[in-house]
Amino acid sequence: MAPAGGPRAKKGILERLDSGEVVVGDGSFLITLEKRGFVKAGLWTPEAVMEHPSAVRQLHMEFLRAGANVLQTFTFSATEDNMESKWEGVNAAACDLAKEVAEEGGALVAGSICQTSMYKYHKDEARIKNLFRLQLEVFIRKNVDFLIAEYFEFVEEAVWAVEVLKEVGKPVAVTMCIGPEGDMHDVTPGECAVKLVKAGADIVGVNCRFGPQTSLQTMKQMKEGLAAVGLDAHLMVQSLGFHTPDCGKGGFVDLPEYPFGLEPRVATRWDIQKYAREAYNLGVRYIGGCCGFEPYHIRAIAEELAPERGFLPPASEKHGIWGSGLDMHTKPWIRARARREYWENLLPASGRPFCPALSKPDA
Amino acid sequence: MAPAGGPRAKKGILERLDSGEVVVGDGSFLITLEKRGFVKAGLWTPEAVMEHPSAVRQLHMEFLRAGANVLQTFTFSATEDNMESKWEGVNAAACDLAKEVAEEGGALVAGSICQTSMYKYHKDEARIKNLFRLQLEVFIRKNVDFLIAEYFEFVEEAVWAVEVLKEVGKPVAVTMCIGPEGDMHDVTPGECAVKLVKAGADIVGVNCRFGPQTSLQTMKQMKEGLAAVGLDAHLMVQSLGFHTPDCGKGGFVDLPEYPFGLEPRVATRWDIQKYAREAYNLGVRYIGGCCGFEPYHIRAIAEELAPERGFLPPASEKHGIWGSGLDMHTKPWIRARARREYWENLLPASGRPFCPALSKPDA
Amino acid sequence: MAPAGGPRAKKGILERLDSGEVVVGDGSFLITLEKRGFVKAGLWTPEAVMEHPSAVRQLHMEFLRAGANVLQTFTFSATEDNMESKWEGVNAAACDLAKEVAEEGGALVAGSICQTSMYKYHKDEARIKNLFRLQLEVFIRKNVDFLIAEYFEFVEEAVWAVEVLKEVGKPVAVTMCIGPEGDMHDVTPGECAVKLVKAGADIVGVNCRFGPQTSLQTMKQMKEGLAAVGLDAHLMVQSLGFHTPDCGKGGFVDLPEYPFGLEPRVATRWDIQKYAREAYNLGVRYIGGCCGFEPYHIRAIAEELAPERGFLPPASEKHGIWGSGLDMHTKPWIRARARREYWENLLPASGRPFCPALSKPDA
Amino acid sequence: MAPAGGPRAKKGILERLDSGEVVVGDGSFLITLEKRGFVKAGLWTPEAVMEHPSAVRQLHMEFLRAGANVLQTFTFSATEDNMESKWEGVNAAACDLAKEVAEEGGALVAGSICQTSMYKYHKDEARIKNLFRLQLEVFIRKNVDFLIAEYFEFVEEAVWAVEVLKEVGKPVAVTMCIGPEGDMHDVTPGECAVKLVKAGADIVGVNCRFGPQTSLQTMKQMKEGLAAVGLDAHLMVQSLGFHTPDCGKGGFVDLPEYPFGLEPRVATRWDIQKYAREAYNLGVRYIGGCCGFEPYHIRAIAEELAPERGFLPPASEKHGIWGSGLDMHTKPWIRARARREYWENLLPASGRPFCPALSKPDA
Repeated sequence: MAPAGGPRAKKGILERLDSGEVVVGDGSFLITLEKRGFVKAGLWTPEAVMEHPSAVRQLHMEFLRAGANVLQTFTFSATEDNMESKWEGVNAAACDLAKEVAEEGGALVAGSICQTSMYKYHKDEARIKNLFRLQLEVFIRKNVDFLIAEYFEFVEEAVWAVEVLKEVGKPVAVTMCIGPEGDMHDVTPGECAVKLVKAGADIVGVNCRFGPQTSLQTMKQMKEGLAAVGLDAHLMVQSLGFHTPDCGKGGFVDLPEYPFGLEPRVATRWDIQKYAREAYNLGVRYIGGCCGFEPYHIRAIAEELAPERGFLPPASEKHGIWGSGLDMHTKPWIRARARREYWENLLPASGRPFCPALSKPDA
Repeated sequence: MAPAGGPRAKKGILERLDSGEVVVGDGSFLITLEKRGFVKAGLWTPEAVMEHPSAVRQLHMEFLRAGANVLQTFTFSATEDNMESKWEGVNAAACDLAKEVAEEGGALVAGSICQTSMYKYHKDEARIKNLFRLQLEVFIRKNVDFLIAEYFEFVEEAVWAVEVLKEVGKPVAVTMCIGPEGDMHDVTPGECAVKLVKAGADIVGVNCRFGPQTSLQTMKQMKEGLAAVGLDAHLMVQSLGFHTPDCGKGGFVDLPEYPFGLEPRVATRWDIQKYAREAYNLGVRYIGGCCGFEPYHIRAIAEELAPERGFLPPASEKHGIWGSGLDMHTKPWIRARARREYWENLLPASGRPFCPALSKPDA
Repeated sequence: MAPAGGPRAKKGILERLDSGEVVVGDGSFLITLEKRGFVKAGLWTPEAVMEHPSAVRQLHMEFLRAGANVLQTFTFSATEDNMESKWEGVNAAACDLAKEVAEEGGALVAGSICQTSMYKYHKDEARIKNLFRLQLEVFIRKNVDFLIAEYFEFVEEAVWAVEVLKEVGKPVAVTMCIGPEGDMHDVTPGECAVKLVKAGADIVGVNCRFGPQTSLQTMKQMKEGLAAVGLDAHLMVQSLGFHTPDCGKGGFVDLPEYPFGLEPRVATRWDIQKYAREAYNLGVRYIGGCCGFEPYHIRAIAEELAPERGFLPPASEKHGIWGSGLDMHTKPWIRARARREYWENLLPASGRPFCPALSKPDA
Repeated sequence: MAPAGGPRAKKGILERLDSGEVVVGDGSFLITLEKRGFVKAGLWTPEAVMEHPSAVRQLHMEFLRAGANVLQTFTFSATEDNMESKWEGVNAAACDLAKEVAEEGGALVAGSICQTSMYKYHKDEARIKNLFRLQLEVFIRKNVDFLIAEYFEFVEEAVWAVEVLKEVGKPVAVTMCIGPEGDMHDVTPGECAVKLVKAGADIVGVNCRFGPQTSLQTMKQMKEGLAAVGLDAHLMVQSLGFHTPDCGKGGFVDLPEYPFGLEPRVATRWDIQKYAREAYNLGVRYIGGCCGFEPYHIRAIAEELAPERGFLPPASEKHGIWGSGLDMHTKPWIRARARREYWENLLPASGRPFCPALSKPDA
């Protein structure tokens, strides 16, 4: 099995999923570019698109090389506060950047919107939908391949987002940033999925806030919720690249380590291979990552599912499967690590004997 | 204190250190570019310079923005095996890339050589010095600002390297990849430092193999060893970005997690601020990183020592000092994290309750 | 508040509970006497009553001094296999021993029976009830104060036990060894409690198999289950003295550390004070321990609830409340530990850096 | 190999050691009886001898059953403050109690003295020696078998103790409560051993303050120190039953968990078998325990060294070697634990995911 060769015809997201293909999503922009020096934590805004386009282009390229089939535009989420500001220019430029890179690898470009800061304070459907439409216009003008409504804490607002996105005839995916306990109004994951599919979403799932294992538990509930009422939809998961067995309903933002002490929680590539396999076994076919997912994590998804997909991503040129790149090491005990069972069974130490394994979430 | 403004005159490494300036080094290339998809673990070679120059340029730029005053060329270490090969072209191109970026920020370019694979098998000084000279020729042709002999396990070979580098009249730094137990022939860190200074090194210290705290223990011994015989030299430290309290004499390569399960050991930015402060207090003035040091770690050095240096690095535009970027967060418990004592005292959890804190090194 | 003084009139268990008194149970016999050298792990039988009566008497005395209001007889659970054997003599002697010590402190003596080994293989109600009656006869002959049916995995068998014990007119307590997931046939804790009260139990609760926090979760469910159907009963909890946040439905026996590696899980006295307070707040008024509960753990219950009860146990003569016995230590940092908030907030280290925090249960 | 049978002739301590026998010491009185309710933490005094002699007798009996060849008297250390008080009566009674039990198993009785509270404040040799002599008189009157000077932080005071004890012609053992860093005046363990042997001690070693592994490191230094100057003595170790890899020079009293949160550090029986084996391999032949050593820990020493000694202790009647008592368990995964390699390799979890592995000592 060699890294993927020549150009492949660009099929739409639903064509791919309908035909049973695995679609690999991309990973973390905000957290990753913060560590590279281009995004400010706390603001979490994408002005780097204008200020440092080469940094953004580079990261798109890395995810593409790692095997991503979808590149998400690195765009502002419009709020009433910034409607006067530079957001529109940034978002248009972000679409151009994503498309430029996507074309080099036959990837799809997805434009995405997320929850508003208003919903918590009022439930004015018209005003919120108006905000969604403003963002949508840029995506339509730039002709992205499909649309994602992501990072919703409340299913009601997510439904509104789906309703807006469905107006333009492109495929619509929707992900909530919820865990197994459901949305902030205690709507279960299963009910959320049902409402979203009924609203017209083609693809449903979760993104962000929760780590790989927790996100898969939520997906299981979504799947069962849909099955219970006889509905069907494509499933999608884009978990954190951080382990969060100890987080509560609010997810990783409530953990004391958020956002500047999460390092010990970063998933290994082997953790992500396990995640990809379990997602696949659960019936999820759109598998990517969110905050904390670096390019090598995306590559881990592509490598784990290479048998099913029939090819490896370009970046696997630089990766020995299951550590095989160590097989020529001069130290025999390091050579001995060049095998699958070694890495599958490793319980990595934190090197932090004064730190605990788990935290109690704030709030 | 604002981020550093206009162009500063480019002073040489010794001018800087002699005048008491803090010099910030750069960070990890091999491990970082491995995670980005451009370097193969096991081989650990820099062919990305030719294959993906934009990825290498981008990383240089990130370290520069983070505050690095020195950019090291991302070059092959010549071995007798690859003397016929592409190494010379890669190394020349690597010099050009580093210089191109360095010029944008008044940084110095350092060409570096490291231990040979031959020394373990024979001790043929002439053959080994010949290899060093081959590499040196490229650096002279490309006119790098100064030279570094780094990653030596045996002080005898490091002395040979210093002797060769001193032949060309440029400043010479030398770092060994040893811990507090000394070199592989049991020469103590203090003795190593003495031998290297006697051989003509202008700057001595350690790089790689050991984490921040362990590397500073070694530096303390080097400093005391020099003082004991009345010698003086500039001190330099470029530790791992991984915590390794549990490693033995061989350092992190012997830990079971090397190289694909080190994630829980990655230092936080706060760990690195502590490292920078302790290095400074110890009298070390050339402070950088090695494997595992990402751009935000280098920024942490520059921010910790901003009071002494009088300026912040460009990337601090995107960083609230001590978490201050969180002070507008809508959740009050997250706003409460926008202060120094919070992050200084945080004991970050690993999120891995089935994993231990420490490992036993192999070998 | 002085340690309890002169003789108090011996009130029955129901008189005490009906009047709102807190009843303190006793603790671990099998595990404790195994560590002292008188019980064999695996067999877990009470022949020490005959072989080493002073060891058994001593432990009863320690629990009494620690504040226990109830001493349970250290008796065999009769099985069809040992009906020919020495069990009857041991059990009669065990009653005598418990009574002898109980009389010194006005404590009650409880005779207890537990689940049979037969129930898993057949559900012959008559044969099982017959076994219970055989044991009951000894308790009646020895005139114990009340009866406990304990350590039942299946509520059906526990109901049979209650029905038998109710035949003789003494108060009947019943505890199941289940956790929040319910009995081995998936009957929830709430349903179990309802069935047992309907069968005639005066006191219901849980014992063994699960640690303090987990047992209280189960008790909360029992309480809510009773409330939901308008039933009322006295509540009782006798948890393990081991922390078991990681155990599954089978409880601590499935943990890899059972039974010879449980040391790191042993509760501190402060953990048990917290347990006692939370049990009390939940409405539980019969509070004791099971495996792993040493005399000082029972004293911790009595000390935590001394304000409510109005007296301290005899063994508090030898205990400074909240560490106050340290207030004369010559080292000031140890004197500083002589206060409640120190011990309440301490997160004790395991001293085992190569061990994990949690285990995966076998099975 | 059956548990030890009939009466054995009582040989003296030096006869035993000179002939190559392993001598098993006893374990913890203060910490153990504190948990049983008879000793007050902070005071740590033995008035239980008078107040609750059955509790003291019982514990002596348990150590004897566990295999101890020596029973130490549970005596006051005389201080100038209590010279007027009840100490002498208690100590005489303690001798009687120990002798009474020792005679049942052919064990030796050792009278012990420890460091004074005065030495820190003045170095008045005559006054301090006078205190030692006062205590010694009781031991001579009661005719104990040999003498131990134990728990000395300063070798100078230990030497004085040895000099006093040697005056009466009985064998003298001496143990310091130091770790690998040496005594409180920085005298190394090797030098301490030399001074003590030169002062006339027949047996030298360490007790208390440090855990099994740390104590063996100190013993190694003592042995090497003696060998370096050509001296020879019998070696003795009585470590804590707590793991203390993180303690500093002051030992476990400086750990934040001392004395009421040490539970997670308690050694398993398997840890103690390892300790016994390593002590034996190091040449130590008098092996016992100190604070935290329960009877089952002493049994673990006796069982580990049963092949060398040729017999098992009485309490092994109630112990399946290496977990063999589990071989009839109904659950197959518990039966699978009935073997040596299971317990030797178990890394027991603490069940405390919010607690660290190590602590920083106070002071």
